[in-house]
Amino acid sequence: MTETALPTIEELDARQSWQLLEEQEYGRIAVVRSGRPEIYPVNYLALQGRIRFHTAPGAKLFGVLLDGHVAFEIDGVDGGTAWSVLVKGTAEEVQLSPDRGDPGPLPEVPWMPERRTAVVDITPIEVTGRRFRRPA
Amino acid sequence: MTETALPTIEELDARQSWQLLEEQEYGRIAVVRSGRPEIYPVNYLALQGRIRFHTAPGAKLFGVLLDGHVAFEIDGVDGGTAWSVLVKGTAEEVQLSPDRGDPGPLPEVPWMPERRTAVVDITPIEVTGRRFRRPA
Repeated sequence: MTETALPTIEELDARQSWQLLEEQEYGRIAVVRSGRPEIYPVNYLALQGRIRFHTAPGAKLFGVLLDGHVAFEIDGVDGGTAWSVLVKGTAEEVQLSPDRGDPGPLPEVPWMPERRTAVVDITPIEVTGRRFRRPA
Repeated sequence: MTETALPTIEELDARQSWQLLEEQEYGRIAVVRSGRPEIYPVNYLALQGRIRFHTAPGAKLFGVLLDGHVAFEIDGVDGGTAWSVLVKGTAEEVQLSPDRGDPGPLPEVPWMPERRTAVVDITPIEVTGRRFRRPA
């Protein structure tokens, strides 16, 4: 029986992980509600070492977001390579102050179908990234 | 001030959600570890109403996977449209029995860089899907 080659994993360092976070605009946030995990896709912006996104103040996500820890993930597949970046941290609502040169909310029209949105920042505690390569 | 049009959300029914689950092969699973959410990207196969994926028996994911509830998510962006499907359920390790016509593990080389893998099935409790359309 022929042994097939196995995929390899490369750990990404913080700089590589943040570069990917800054290039992308679409990720997923996981929260715990009543002891169970939930995942929500979000548009986001990585800025100044934080992950910013919008949510509707009345949305299910917003209710549990600020209670505790969150996980945030982005990933991509490119031919024989897949990569992912995982951010663990805490979330807090942000009151934007344009006067202080705050870069403001997201640059694009959000996917949110509500006019009232809350701006939430994730402050990372841990950022890790991995790249998987399939054998040729 | 001109009012800009807002995105709209369309709820996908079970058939539409499963069709997307069957078309894709790359998703994310969320688990709770010590009360905190974690997200792991996985290759998967949707079959017979379940979500099947591989994990290494020694992996961090495997340790918490079987303790309780999991969430599984896939999504995609296509021009002015984004969609996502969320599966909530429980996970269990599967002992494959080719004798019984079991369709076996995943059809592709997994991303897992280990030769020993465990096969895990998610049994869905709830499957929901949404499609977001940005205004033209």
